[in-house]
Amino acid sequence: MATRTVGPRSGCPINAAVEVIGDRWSLLVLRDMMFGNRRHFRALQELSEESIASNILADRLRRLRDAGLLTRADVGRGRRAIYSLTEAAIELVPVMAALGAWGLRNRPTSPTLRLRAERLADGGPELWEDFMAELRAEHLGVEPPPHDRPRATERLAIRGRY
Amino acid sequence: MATRTVGPRSGCPINAAVEVIGDRWSLLVLRDMMFGNRRHFRALQELSEESIASNILADRLRRLRDAGLLTRADVGRGRRAIYSLTEAAIELVPVMAALGAWGLRNRPTSPTLRLRAERLADGGPELWEDFMAELRAEHLGVEPPPHDRPRATERLAIRGRY
Repeated sequence: MATRTVGPRSGCPINAAVEVIGDRWSLLVLRDMMFGNRRHFRALQELSEESIASNILADRLRRLRDAGLLTRADVGRGRRAIYSLTEAAIELVPVMAALGAWGLRNRPTSPTLRLRAERLADGGPELWEDFMAELRAEHLGVEPPPHDRPRATERLAIRGRY
Repeated sequence: MATRTVGPRSGCPINAAVEVIGDRWSLLVLRDMMFGNRRHFRALQELSEESIASNILADRLRRLRDAGLLTRADVGRGRRAIYSLTEAAIELVPVMAALGAWGLRNRPTSPTLRLRAERLADGGPELWEDFMAELRAEHLGVEPPPHDRPRATERLAIRGRY
């Protein structure tokens, strides 16, 4: 869906959203970049909890770039490309929180993997905003706003989880 | 994805969610039942803003029933089947609100179809809870809690929109 070039099928904002992210693998790639700080193809593939296939990963990375959700930089000859979330992708944090909260309540999940979704749901919009500010610093080079709370990534205690 | 019978690929709540609803047509069918009060196959197909094909609609209705998000009742000989949202589906209202808010900010949308997503985002969790209570009354036969606010459906002013 992310590669549609004929425009959205309707002007509904929900449709507009699901036309670019209404695909489970696209959402899982974005999840791993957001919460697991995975920025390279190899890390995204090898650490995938869902064992994403390399051809699917390559396809979704391309679609997400086409849709303006990721950028890719080649960091020098022989070095691996690094992927960054765009502002539009970072603004999906509340969508991820809502999906996680729903999954917690309505689907079978495992205790260790529940923890982050629980903290994300409990933290509410304040935590999501802090987390988005930290993602902007890491992925967009934006100066993070100073604050005296512990970092959102610490409160989520998630780096390396995915 | 909704028809997977071998269990989820991981115990992550976000994965658990997208394995059953990470498909654009499934989400659009649920959207039309929620916000457009469409309960019959024909209404879901003929009024579809995105012109859903009948074979895709039939497939997604079946998957959503298999996943426990819809129930179907045959309302008498020669009468059309009526579909109802389950509690799990009703709890997707905050996910729809988050998707709509993201689409509003990040994708091209049309002015008339933006209105509901704007009201849904502006209303916040209180409006979502009221709307879910009204959906429970309509789809599950649950007595709605009395309150002195205007009905959520009136505040959203959406019935018949989709």
